[in-house]
Amino acid sequence: MQIAAIVGGGNVLTGDDVSARSVDWLSAAGCRAGAIVRPASTDELAAVMRACHGAHQPVVTHGGLTGLVHGAEAEPSEVVISLERMTTIEDIDPIGNTLTVQAGAPLQKVQEAAEGAGRQFALDLGARGSCTIGGNIATNAGGIRVIRYGMMRQQVLGLEAVLADGTVVSSMNRMLKNNAGFDLKQLFIGSEGTLGIVTRAVLQLRPPTSDVQTALVACPSFEAVTGLLAHMGQALGGNLAAFEAMWQSHYRLLTEQSGRHTPPLATDAPFYVILESLGTDAESHAALFSKALEAALEQQLIEDAVVAHSASQRQGIWDIREDIEGLIQTLAPLFTFDVSLPIAEMERYVAKVEAAITHDWPDGRMVTFGHLGDGNLHLSVSVGSHADETRHAVEAHVYSPLAELGGSVSAEHGIGLEKRAYLSISRTPEEIALMHTLKQAMDPLGLLNRHKVLAPAAG
Amino acid sequence: MQIAAIVGGGNVLTGDDVSARSVDWLSAAGCRAGAIVRPASTDELAAVMRACHGAHQPVVTHGGLTGLVHGAEAEPSEVVISLERMTTIEDIDPIGNTLTVQAGAPLQKVQEAAEGAGRQFALDLGARGSCTIGGNIATNAGGIRVIRYGMMRQQVLGLEAVLADGTVVSSMNRMLKNNAGFDLKQLFIGSEGTLGIVTRAVLQLRPPTSDVQTALVACPSFEAVTGLLAHMGQALGGNLAAFEAMWQSHYRLLTEQSGRHTPPLATDAPFYVILESLGTDAESHAALFSKALEAALEQQLIEDAVVAHSASQRQGIWDIREDIEGLIQTLAPLFTFDVSLPIAEMERYVAKVEAAITHDWPDGRMVTFGHLGDGNLHLSVSVGSHADETRHAVEAHVYSPLAELGGSVSAEHGIGLEKRAYLSISRTPEEIALMHTLKQAMDPLGLLNRHKVLAPAAG
Ligand SMILES: Cc1cc2nc3c(=O)[nH]c(=O)nc-3n(C[C@H](O)[C@H](O)[C@H](O)COP(=O)(O)OP(=O)(O)OC[C@H]3O[C@@H](n4cnc5c(N)ncnc54)[C@H](O)[C@@H]3O)c2cc1C
Ligand SMILES: Cc1cc2nc3c(=O)[nH]c(=O)nc-3n(C[C@H](O)[C@H](O)[C@H](O)COP(=O)(O)OP(=O)(O)OC[C@H]3O[C@@H](n4cnc5c(N)ncnc54)[C@H](O)[C@@H]3O)c2cc1C
Repeated sequence: MQIAAIVGGGNVLTGDDVSARSVDWLSAAGCRAGAIVRPASTDELAAVMRACHGAHQPVVTHGGLTGLVHGAEAEPSEVVISLERMTTIEDIDPIGNTLTVQAGAPLQKVQEAAEGAGRQFALDLGARGSCTIGGNIATNAGGIRVIRYGMMRQQVLGLEAVLADGTVVSSMNRMLKNNAGFDLKQLFIGSEGTLGIVTRAVLQLRPPTSDVQTALVACPSFEAVTGLLAHMGQALGGNLAAFEAMWQSHYRLLTEQSGRHTPPLATDAPFYVILESLGTDAESHAALFSKALEAALEQQLIEDAVVAHSASQRQGIWDIREDIEGLIQTLAPLFTFDVSLPIAEMERYVAKVEAAITHDWPDGRMVTFGHLGDGNLHLSVSVGSHADETRHAVEAHVYSPLAELGGSVSAEHGIGLEKRAYLSISRTPEEIALMHTLKQAMDPLGLLNRHKVLAPAAG
Repeated sequence: MQIAAIVGGGNVLTGDDVSARSVDWLSAAGCRAGAIVRPASTDELAAVMRACHGAHQPVVTHGGLTGLVHGAEAEPSEVVISLERMTTIEDIDPIGNTLTVQAGAPLQKVQEAAEGAGRQFALDLGARGSCTIGGNIATNAGGIRVIRYGMMRQQVLGLEAVLADGTVVSSMNRMLKNNAGFDLKQLFIGSEGTLGIVTRAVLQLRPPTSDVQTALVACPSFEAVTGLLAHMGQALGGNLAAFEAMWQSHYRLLTEQSGRHTPPLATDAPFYVILESLGTDAESHAALFSKALEAALEQQLIEDAVVAHSASQRQGIWDIREDIEGLIQTLAPLFTFDVSLPIAEMERYVAKVEAAITHDWPDGRMVTFGHLGDGNLHLSVSVGSHADETRHAVEAHVYSPLAELGGSVSAEHGIGLEKRAYLSISRTPEEIALMHTLKQAMDPLGLLNRHKVLAPAAG
C-alpha cells in the first residue's frame, strides 16, 4: 500500500486498531474509518495527501477528538489523518513573543511551554489536556478569556496547511503586522478542516499576569447586568478578563436545589455575574478592583458581592459556573446549546425560548449561563427525553428566534455535522454560496472533511 | 447609459470632473479613469456591478485616497466606484459595543460618534480625517495602538461586500463569538479591494480609557530595548498601548541636527523608546507607570527617562516621532519604507541595510523608527536622487534581506501596485498561487482592482 510506504506500516492502523478508538468525546462508539494514518511531519502528510488525491480518497482529520459537533466522525470509505505524532514545540522566541509548534501538540503542552519561558499562551478551555492546537485552530476555539484576549484566531500569527492535493501552503508569519497580500491563514482558522489540514502554527505569546481578582456579584435586573458590563469595562480597562453571567435558574439549580455548592450569595437575585480582572501589581490592582465594585454598588448595578480572597475561594466561585457534571446529574436527559446574539436581546430571547419549552413540555426545564461579555450563552434544556425527534423539536425552539436577532447557532463549537441543517438560520444564501465557491476552488474533489459544515451542494 | 439610470446622471462623473480629482494622496496628477460612479447605497452599487459584470467593465474602488501603495490608481479603460456618498452611521449599540456604518464614512467621523456614545473606536492614524472605514478595512490599517487593540481586522465584527458580479454578501455579525461556518469577512479585510467592494461594516467599540501615561526613555543597547519591551508588557499588563522605538540616527536628526525639536533627553544613547500606557483610575495608573519605570532604571534597561506631566509635554514627545515633515525637509529626496520582521533580528537588519546604502552611496543616509512592539519598522533613506532607477536599487537593499528573516515588505500599507514586484520576497510560490486561486474563484473576469496586489498570472 502506497501510504504505508510513506509513513511506515506501523503508522497505518486498520481493523480493531481503528474500531478500538472512540469516534469522539461525545460518543462511546468506535471509529468507523477504513484506516487511521499517522504522519510524522508535514512532508509525510503532504505525500499522503498527494496519494489520496490521486486515488480520490476522502480523509477526515483528527486532533484531540474533543470537538462537540461531530466534526471528526468518519465513514468506512474515509481515511483518518491523525496528527498525534506531530506534537513538537519547535521554537520559542521570548523577544518576539512567539511559539512555533506542530499542530498535533496538546493545548496544555503549549501553555506549559509558554509559562516555562516566562510568558503565557492566552487560550484556555476545559479540554486543554486533550485538545490540540490544530483542533483549536480548525474550530477557532473560544473559552473564558475572549473578552480580554480574543478567540484562537487572535492567537495565531502564522500557520502552515496541507491542501487537498498535497500542496503545502506555508504562511509561518511571526509578526503582529504583515499586510503583504491576502492573509491566507484566516481561511484555515474556523473552517473545521474543510479547506486544508493545519500542520504547524506560529502562536502569539503574552506577558504573564501576576494578580487575579475574582468576584461573584448579584444583579437586580438585566439592565443592571449590561450596565455593569459597561461600568467594569470602563473601570478596569485592559484588565477585565471574564464577565460570566448566570441566570437565577442556573445559580439556584447548582447551589440550593442540588446541594452541590454552598451559595456564596443569597439565591433571590435574578442574575449573577462572575467578574475577573487580570492585573500586574497586586496592591494597586486589588484597590482598582474594589473601587470598581464599590462604585457598582453605589450605582445599584449590583446588590451584593463576594470577592475571593484566596485561590480556593476563587475556585469555589468558578466551580458553580463550571459544574457541567452537576448539570448532567440534575437535568439528564439533557440538551445543551451554544449560541450567540446581541447582548441587548438576551433577556427577551431567553424568556422566549424558556416559554416555548415549558409550553411544549410542562415539566421541562431550562437553565442559562454564558460568556455574556462575548454575546455567548449556553442553554441547558431538559424535557425528559433524549430522542432525536425531541432534540429536533427543542432545537427549533432554541435556534429559530436567532434568525431575526442576527444571532448565531454556534458561538464557539462550530457546525460540523451537528448544526449543518441550521447554518441557514445564521448565514444568508449568498454567504453559503460563497462558502461553496471557496470549498470548490480549494478542494474540488471534496476530499477534506466531506459534508462537514456545508451540506452537499444541490444539483 | 445604463449606470446613469441606476445612480442618477449627476453621480456619473466624466471628463474634467474626473481629471480634476487627484489620483491619490501621493501624487498631484489627475485621475485617469473613464468615469467616476458614486452610488448612494449597497443596492445601487450592486446594480452598478451587475451592469459592469455584464459589460466586462473593470472597476477601481475609491475611499479616501490616502493609501500609500498606488492601490487606487485607475486607467482610462477603468471605471472608478467612489464610496463618497455612502457615509451614514446607521446604528450604535452601547450595550453590545458595536457601531454599524457605511464603508465610505471617514474614520474620524466614526471615532467621534463612538466618543459621543461614551465609547471609543480603537483604530487611529494620521489620515483619520480623510481615510474611510472601507479603505481601512481593505488595507487592514494599523497605526500606533496595535500592541493594545490590534489592527483594523480586530475591530471588524461584521461586514457586507458586493462581489464582482453584483452579488451582495452580507455578513453583518454583531457578536464577539460566531463560529457558524467560514468567517467570510476575513477575505475582504486586507485584500485591497481585489475580492469585493466593502459597503458596510459592524465595528467593535471599546470602553474609553481615561488616563494616559507617556514617557520617553533612553536605552543603552538593543538588548535593553527588547528587555524593556518584555518588562513593560509584564509590568503594565493590558494597559501598554505604545512601544515606539527611535534609533539614535532618527532622534538626533529631528532634534539637535535639524533644530526642529528640543531634545527632552541627551542625544548620546543608541536607542530611544516612547512608552504609552492607557489606564482608567488616574492615581493608581500613574503609580503603576512610575513603578514600572523605576524598576526598568534599576535593571539598567533604561539609562534616562522623562515622563510627560501635561498634554503638551506628551505632545512634545510624540512630535519628534511623528515629524514626517521634518524628515522630508532634512532628507529630501527621500524614500520611505514600511517593513516588518522578527524583533530579535532588527538591530542586525538595520545595520545591514544601512551599510549597504552607505556602501553604494557614500553620502547616503538612513534613519529608523517604528512600532517596535509590533515588529514594524519605518526606514527613511536619502541618497540624493529620486529617480525610479535609484528607488529600485534602494528597494533591493531594503527588501532582499527580509526573505531569509521571514520579514514582510509591507507591515501596514499593503501591496497595491507599488510593492507587487516584491511580494515574492515575503510570500511563497504556493501562497501566491493560492491567492490567484481565490481571485479566480471570486472574480473570474478580473474586474475588481485589476493587477493590484497580484501580477497577472503567467500563461
Ligand atoms: C470538556 C470540554 C470543554 C470544552 N470547552 C470549550 C470552550 O470553552 N470553548 C470552545 O470553543 N470549545 C470548547 N470545547 C470544544 C473543543 O475542545 C474545541 O473545539 C477544541 O478546539 C477541539 O480540538 P481537538 O484537537 O480536540 O479537535 P478534534 O475534536 O479532533 O477536531 C475538531 C474539528 O477540527 C478538525 N481538525 C482537528 N485537527 C485539525 C487540523 N490539524 N487541521 C484541520 N482540521 C483539524 C477535525 O476534523 C474536526 O472537524 C470543549 C470540549 C470539551 C470536551
Ligand atoms: C498621513 C497618512 C498617515 C497614514 N498612517 C497610516 C498608519 O499609521 N497605518 C496604516 O496602516 N496606514 C496609514 N496610512 C495609509 C492609509 O491611510 C490607510 O491605508 C487607509 O486605511 C486607506 O484608507 P482610504 O479610505 O484612504 O483608502 P484608499 O486610499 O481610497 O484606498 C486604498 C485601497 O483600498 C481600496 N478600497 C478603498 N475603499 C474600499 C472599499 N470600500 N472596498 C474595497 N476596497 C476599497 C482601494 O481600491 C485601494 O486599493 C496613512 C496615510 C496617510 C496619508
